Amino acid sequence: MPEGRVEVEPQDGLTTRQRRNRPLVIVHTGDGKGKSTAAFGLAVRGWNQGWPIGVFQFVKSAKWRIGEQTVLETLDEVHRTTGQGGPVEWHKMGSGWSWSRKAGSEEDHAADAAEGWQEIKRRLAAETHRLYVLDEFTYPIAWGWVDVDDVVETLVNRPGQQHVVITGRRADPKLLEIANLVTEMRAVKHPFAEGQKGQRGIEW
Amino acid sequence: MPEGRVEVEPQDGLTTRQRRNRPLVIVHTGDGKGKSTAAFGLAVRGWNQGWPIGVFQFVKSAKWRIGEQTVLETLDEVHRTTGQGGPVEWHKMGSGWSWSRKAGSEEDHAADAAEGWQEIKRRLAAETHRLYVLDEFTYPIAWGWVDVDDVVETLVNRPGQQHVVITGRRADPKLLEIANLVTEMRAVKHPFAEGQKGQRGIEW
Repeated sequence: MPEGRVEVEPQDGLTTRQRRNRPLVIVHTGDGKGKSTAAFGLAVRGWNQGWPIGVFQFVKSAKWRIGEQTVLETLDEVHRTTGQGGPVEWHKMGSGWSWSRKAGSEEDHAADAAEGWQEIKRRLAAETHRLYVLDEFTYPIAWGWVDVDDVVETLVNRPGQQHVVITGRRADPKLLEIANLVTEMRAVKHPFAEGQKGQRGIEW
Repeated sequence: MPEGRVEVEPQDGLTTRQRRNRPLVIVHTGDGKGKSTAAFGLAVRGWNQGWPIGVFQFVKSAKWRIGEQTVLETLDEVHRTTGQGGPVEWHKMGSGWSWSRKAGSEEDHAADAAEGWQEIKRRLAAETHRLYVLDEFTYPIAWGWVDVDDVVETLVNRPGQQHVVITGRRADPKLLEIANLVTEMRAVKHPFAEGQKGQRGIEW
């Protein structure tokens, strides 16, 4: 119907809704706390919107279970039993990814990281998730295990409405360049400096 | 039994466990994003430890529902039906607190903020929660609605093992002084600067 038709439209191939809900690349970096916690918080928020969520832990905590994993898996269970929220997948590198079952292979973190990134590329191409948390992904980039130019090209050209949140210190300048939102978490005061050890419920 | 007895103990009246699990005052401040999101992430983590959680929203979003509220109330429901995690209470100032039912009173944000703080003092004295999120609590302090010296004295002398997380810009120096952990969220790049509006799932 001609009514309500906008005469002049931006020639960017996007609907108004798509233009408003622009998919974001978000980076949480800096030496302070809260980078991963805030990223998992965004995952929780996205779950509530009914988004399919994918979390990929590249380094820290990959061998042990953090509270957020239990919580997001509980939310996935809520989704499966009641339809509330969205589905959640949580994968961690540890010794090999959860989708990968290499029997008896030696630990090769560089190969594991590269394999994780290849899987994420496949999922971005297939638009598997609506929000991706690539936790501590800055490190395999910094260590040269994953090619930053490949990451940048993949993110810039990803299809659809997929948000990607990347956490970790020492974020590559090329990554910051293409990010839409960058927050630096800066440690002003930290109890570890007073000899306090990490504690359950606060650190994990 | 004398075996395993430590000969020299710090005379601080604390058990070893208490000394390790020292209750923390945590402040998330700065002009960047993630202050509240990371605080709600700590609440989620605490829930997973079985802690009773209390969230008190002082300003932002107090009249509308953010995703985390739905999620934490869902987790409270999981706790009540399965025993997993801990109980969660979420209160917001909006026009009066949820525990307060003042019919037909005019909006008085200063009085509401002061009333919220009095309730939190009562709960801290009663050790009602294990983790408190005082979201945007820096503002009523900055505006003089809540006395910072009273806050400092209450927090320093609070009994037991209660963690308190306070978020917001312009945190009072007296609050930072007694905080155990302070993180500044610094905005490096923000899509609002590019004319992007807030969007569902990311901002709320």
